[in-house]
Amino acid sequence: MFDLGKYLAEKSGLVDSYLREYFSSSRIRPLLLKESMEYSVSAGGKRIRPVLAIASYEACGGENTAGMLHCACALELVHTYSLIHDDLPAMDDDDLRRGKPTNHKVYGEAMAILAGDGLLTEAFRMLSAPCRQTRKAETGEGGGAGVLLAVIADLAARAGLLGMVAGQAQDIISETVLPGGPRADRRQEVQFIHVHKTAQLITASVRMGAMLSGADAGGLQAMTGYGEAIGLAFQIADDILDVKGETALMGKTAGSDERKQKLTYPLAFGMEASEREAADLVGKALSCLEGFGDRAQPLRAIAGYIIERKS
Amino acid sequence: MFDLGKYLAEKSGLVDSYLREYFSSSRIRPLLLKESMEYSVSAGGKRIRPVLAIASYEACGGENTAGMLHCACALELVHTYSLIHDDLPAMDDDDLRRGKPTNHKVYGEAMAILAGDGLLTEAFRMLSAPCRQTRKAETGEGGGAGVLLAVIADLAARAGLLGMVAGQAQDIISETVLPGGPRADRRQEVQFIHVHKTAQLITASVRMGAMLSGADAGGLQAMTGYGEAIGLAFQIADDILDVKGETALMGKTAGSDERKQKLTYPLAFGMEASEREAADLVGKALSCLEGFGDRAQPLRAIAGYIIERKS
Repeated sequence: MFDLGKYLAEKSGLVDSYLREYFSSSRIRPLLLKESMEYSVSAGGKRIRPVLAIASYEACGGENTAGMLHCACALELVHTYSLIHDDLPAMDDDDLRRGKPTNHKVYGEAMAILAGDGLLTEAFRMLSAPCRQTRKAETGEGGGAGVLLAVIADLAARAGLLGMVAGQAQDIISETVLPGGPRADRRQEVQFIHVHKTAQLITASVRMGAMLSGADAGGLQAMTGYGEAIGLAFQIADDILDVKGETALMGKTAGSDERKQKLTYPLAFGMEASEREAADLVGKALSCLEGFGDRAQPLRAIAGYIIERKS
Repeated sequence: MFDLGKYLAEKSGLVDSYLREYFSSSRIRPLLLKESMEYSVSAGGKRIRPVLAIASYEACGGENTAGMLHCACALELVHTYSLIHDDLPAMDDDDLRRGKPTNHKVYGEAMAILAGDGLLTEAFRMLSAPCRQTRKAETGEGGGAGVLLAVIADLAARAGLLGMVAGQAQDIISETVLPGGPRADRRQEVQFIHVHKTAQLITASVRMGAMLSGADAGGLQAMTGYGEAIGLAFQIADDILDVKGETALMGKTAGSDERKQKLTYPLAFGMEASEREAADLVGKALSCLEGFGDRAQPLRAIAGYIIERKS
C-alpha cells in the first residue's frame, strides 16, 4: 500500500534541504533582500510544485532525481514570487500567508516587490546556470542543453503571459472592473483565471519532470493532460476550502474570498457543481496515467489528495 | 568617417520594428495587460541595450544579425520591466518617464506590477523558445542551445541577484535607512548601486552579443571589460546630467535626484571627480577594444556618446 504522507514528507524534505543549503551558501547582498526572499521561501509551503516535478520525472523513468532537484526547486522560487506579489496592497492586500505576516508586512512594499523580482529572475538562473547538478543532467537521460532550453521556454510561457501573470491580471480586472458582470461571463472569467493563474504553473511542473526524464511525445502529452486536470482541480478545491475550511488549518482566514468579492468557482457555478467538477477532473487526471504502471503511483495519490486535503 | 547618429537610428529601428511586430502579432490576454506592457515598451527609449548587443555581436564577427535580434530585444523587455517597477509609488514614486505618465499612473499599480512581471518572464521565453530566428541561430555561428543557455544564465545573474535587483534594493535601503551615513560608506554604497543597478545589465548586453557570435574567451573577456566600463560611465553621466541637464531634453525633471535625496556620484565624490571618473572609464572601455579593428567602430563611438549625450 502506497503511503502518500511518507512520500510527500520525503520529497518535500529534499526540496527544503536544497533551498536551505541554497540560501545558507549564497552571498546575496544587500542582506535585507536575501532575508526577505528567504523569509517567504522558508515559510513552510507544501512544495507541491517541485514534488510534482519529481514525481513526474520518476514516473517517466527518470533515475537521477538529485541531478534535476535544482530545476524542481526553481519552481518553488517562481511560486513564492507569485505569492509575494499577489499579497501586495495594490493586488490582493493580504496580511497573512500560511499563518505568518506577508512579506510586505515585514519588509515593506519596495523590498517585497524586489524579493519577488529577485526570486523570479533567480529561478531562470537556477535552470540555466552551469552547476554540478546541471552537468550531471547534461550527461544523463535528459538530453542536455536543448532539453533545459525547452524547460525554460515552457515555464516562462506558463508562468508568464500564457499563464500565471495573465491569470492574475484577469483576476484583478474581474475584481475591480466587473465585480457584478452577467453570470455567463463570470463562468468564463473564473475558468480563465483558474486555468491561467494556477493550472498552468502546475502543468509546467509536471511537464518539467517529463521533459527532464527524456519522455517521448506520448508521455509528455499524457503528463500535460494530467497536469492541466489536477491544476484546475487544485484551484477549485481551494475555492471550496475557502468556503468550508477551518481558519486554523489553512493559515489564512476562512471565507476571505467571499469578503473580498473574489470570483470563485462556487460563486460562479454553485457548490455542488464545483465539487462534481473537481472530482471529474481527478478522474480525468487518473485516466491520463493509464499505462504508466506502478511508477505513477505517487501521481495518482497526489491527484486524490488534491481534492481531499484540509489545508 | 563613422556616422553614429545614422548607426543608432538604423539599429534601434530594427529593434523598434521587431517589438512592434511582436506586440501586433501577439495574443496576450487580458488586453489591458498587453496594452500596459506595450505602453511602456513603445515609450520611445534609445534601445541602447539591444543596440549594444548588436554592435558587440557584429564587432566579434557575427554575421546573422536578423537571427539574434530577438535575443537583443529580450534585453529591452528586461530594461522596461525594471523601469516600470522602479517608478512604482513604493519605489522611486515617479509620475513621468520619458516625458509621458509612468505605467502605474495610466494603468494602476496592480497592472504595472504585472506588466513588469510579464515583461521579465517573457524575456526569458523570447530567449529560450524555439522560433524561426532561434533555429537560424542554432545552425549559425552561435553554437546552438548551449550558447543560449549560457546567455540566459548570464542575463539572469546580472539582471537579478548579482546585478539589477540587488542594486535597486541597495538604492531603496540607502534612501530610507541610511540617508545621512558617513561619507566613506556613501562612496562604497553609490558604487555598489551603480555597478549593480546599471552596469551589470549593460555588461550582460555586450556579453550577449559576444557569446552569440561565438567569440573566444579572450574576446568575451575584452567585451566584458568594455561593458563594465561604459555601464558605470553611463550611470555617472546620468547623475551628472540630472544636475546639469535641461528638463525638456531629458523627459524628466532636472534635479529630481537631489530633491529625492538620491545617492548620486556627484553627491558622494563631487562633480569634478565624477566627470574625471566618467572620462577615465570611457578610456578604459576604448582600451578593451584594441585589436578589434574597424568592426568595433560603433562600440567606440557609443562609448564616447555615453558621456557626451544631452538626454
